[in-house]
Amino acid sequence: MSPGFASSVPAVAALDWGTTRLRAWLIDGGGKVLAERRGDDGLITAREKGFANVLEGHLAAMGAPEELPVIICGMAGSRQGWLEAPYVGVPSPLGAILGGAARVPGQKRDIRIVPGLAQRLADAPDVMRGEETQLAGAGLPAKGRELVCMPGTHSKWVLVEDGAVAGFGTWPTGELFSVLAAHSILRHSLGEHPSPVAPDNPFFRRWCETALGDGGDVTSRLFAIRAAGLLQDLQADNAAACLSGLLIGGEIASARRRHGAGATSVVLVASGALAGLYQAALGLAGLGVRTVDADEAVRAGLIEAARENGMIARSGAAI
Amino acid sequence: MSPGFASSVPAVAALDWGTTRLRAWLIDGGGKVLAERRGDDGLITAREKGFANVLEGHLAAMGAPEELPVIICGMAGSRQGWLEAPYVGVPSPLGAILGGAARVPGQKRDIRIVPGLAQRLADAPDVMRGEETQLAGAGLPAKGRELVCMPGTHSKWVLVEDGAVAGFGTWPTGELFSVLAAHSILRHSLGEHPSPVAPDNPFFRRWCETALGDGGDVTSRLFAIRAAGLLQDLQADNAAACLSGLLIGGEIASARRRHGAGATSVVLVASGALAGLYQAALGLAGLGVRTVDADEAVRAGLIEAARENGMIARSGAAI
Repeated sequence: MSPGFASSVPAVAALDWGTTRLRAWLIDGGGKVLAERRGDDGLITAREKGFANVLEGHLAAMGAPEELPVIICGMAGSRQGWLEAPYVGVPSPLGAILGGAARVPGQKRDIRIVPGLAQRLADAPDVMRGEETQLAGAGLPAKGRELVCMPGTHSKWVLVEDGAVAGFGTWPTGELFSVLAAHSILRHSLGEHPSPVAPDNPFFRRWCETALGDGGDVTSRLFAIRAAGLLQDLQADNAAACLSGLLIGGEIASARRRHGAGATSVVLVASGALAGLYQAALGLAGLGVRTVDADEAVRAGLIEAARENGMIARSGAAI
Repeated sequence: MSPGFASSVPAVAALDWGTTRLRAWLIDGGGKVLAERRGDDGLITAREKGFANVLEGHLAAMGAPEELPVIICGMAGSRQGWLEAPYVGVPSPLGAILGGAARVPGQKRDIRIVPGLAQRLADAPDVMRGEETQLAGAGLPAKGRELVCMPGTHSKWVLVEDGAVAGFGTWPTGELFSVLAAHSILRHSLGEHPSPVAPDNPFFRRWCETALGDGGDVTSRLFAIRAAGLLQDLQADNAAACLSGLLIGGEIASARRRHGAGATSVVLVASGALAGLYQAALGLAGLGVRTVDADEAVRAGLIEAARENGMIARSGAAI
């Protein structure tokens, strides 16, 4: 055991295991973080190297004991992952979702994967995997109605009522930005390596405001970015800001229409640059914003999942 | 001269010269088509081989006289083309647009390129190049208000009032379909080679109807196609029909909101499979449809442009 653990012994290892990356923590019986590790061996790499091999490599590097139990969330639990952790249907209380973690068979350790969520509506089918754990770690109140925005490649908006997921939707905003910037006619407008967009960029703000007034209709304005390059001398970096503002503003307008009737504030679960852009855009939409760091939320959610699955004690005492 | 011209002599050559393809016709002084030729040497190829070389090759193959004048529309008149034919600003009468063709300097022949259109609105900049000629050949009445839909990679919707373009917009529907099918997560849903979508496919019709009710918001439903594959066993061909219905329905809802206030019918300028899909979708939107074949419209528009530029007589007699 490494000197870093001197004050406490790990009770569980927690992993956020996504498509392209993973993060791992050692947690003591009271829910305290003892060690952290990051890797780029997400689902894609792990399918080649073997999930157990990748996991054991990271645990060994952190000096984890041989029989330490492991709790995992994210795409490692998908059909293409290590073991499909069946979806839990919504509506469902967050605690019940976390508590239904699926055990990976044939392993010496107790390894469990948090299930994803499925919304089995005929006209609005949807799924999430990983965000349910972030959501559980976002510190939402046990009572009341919360609209939660979790931006990313596939942004999720979730309506939580009295600690239960009532419904959700997905807006592929990050993916649209990447795909349009790289493969559509807008690549001529944005250039090969668009700079990061700043939340105070006036083009970001103006296009965001316009999109907020359009109820989620963004396709009618995409080509205008190209036309603005031809007619208004719009430069590449500002073109990226226009596209970002248009897509984020469109997402907010659309999500509000679908899930946010009457909402005056939003819980934003985000980190880094994305947090800044969404804070600005939600502000332009006239919504109050409480920001929860996404990295901290997933870690807190995994600790909660370890508790719900009896891997560490609910009371905070080591089991 | 080939035997096909026995009854008449060509007065002008007309070319629809796009990014990847061209079509050429020999026209007599009365506006009659004497010969037709198609090539895949559009702007991209012509930039390498030289526009004059490509043009002369096609004209020689059709047996065109050495000094036959030429009228051209399309991307050959763009900044990346042979000669930039400056945009005409809207609003503008269609005749005035065609009549402003730019002459290519330094050529033995009289070669002119029809200008594109520019909408210089601060919040809705837009351009078209090639569609203005289709529009002029669509047989629109000289009086009255017409909403014209010209679907394609970048669909154009044009409001024409008393024979003048009042305004227009672009929806990159065809490009969104291609780019999302090839590069987004939906490639897993649609498979590598999506089959053509039939207008009576029930998935096309249902997703189109849903989109028509959403005011142009399509981004909120893109991921649902992926989720329907996971939760509802949606198959690849039907996934392509969903995406097509969603994007076309969204385009119509959005265009109607922007340009079609009060419109009860639409002039659809389209050919082939696209004509069938848009006829079905416009019908689902409750709009009357008059379809004009897009290939015939551009040819008729080029003949009209030859007339407006004095290359053939307005009266129909050879000059």
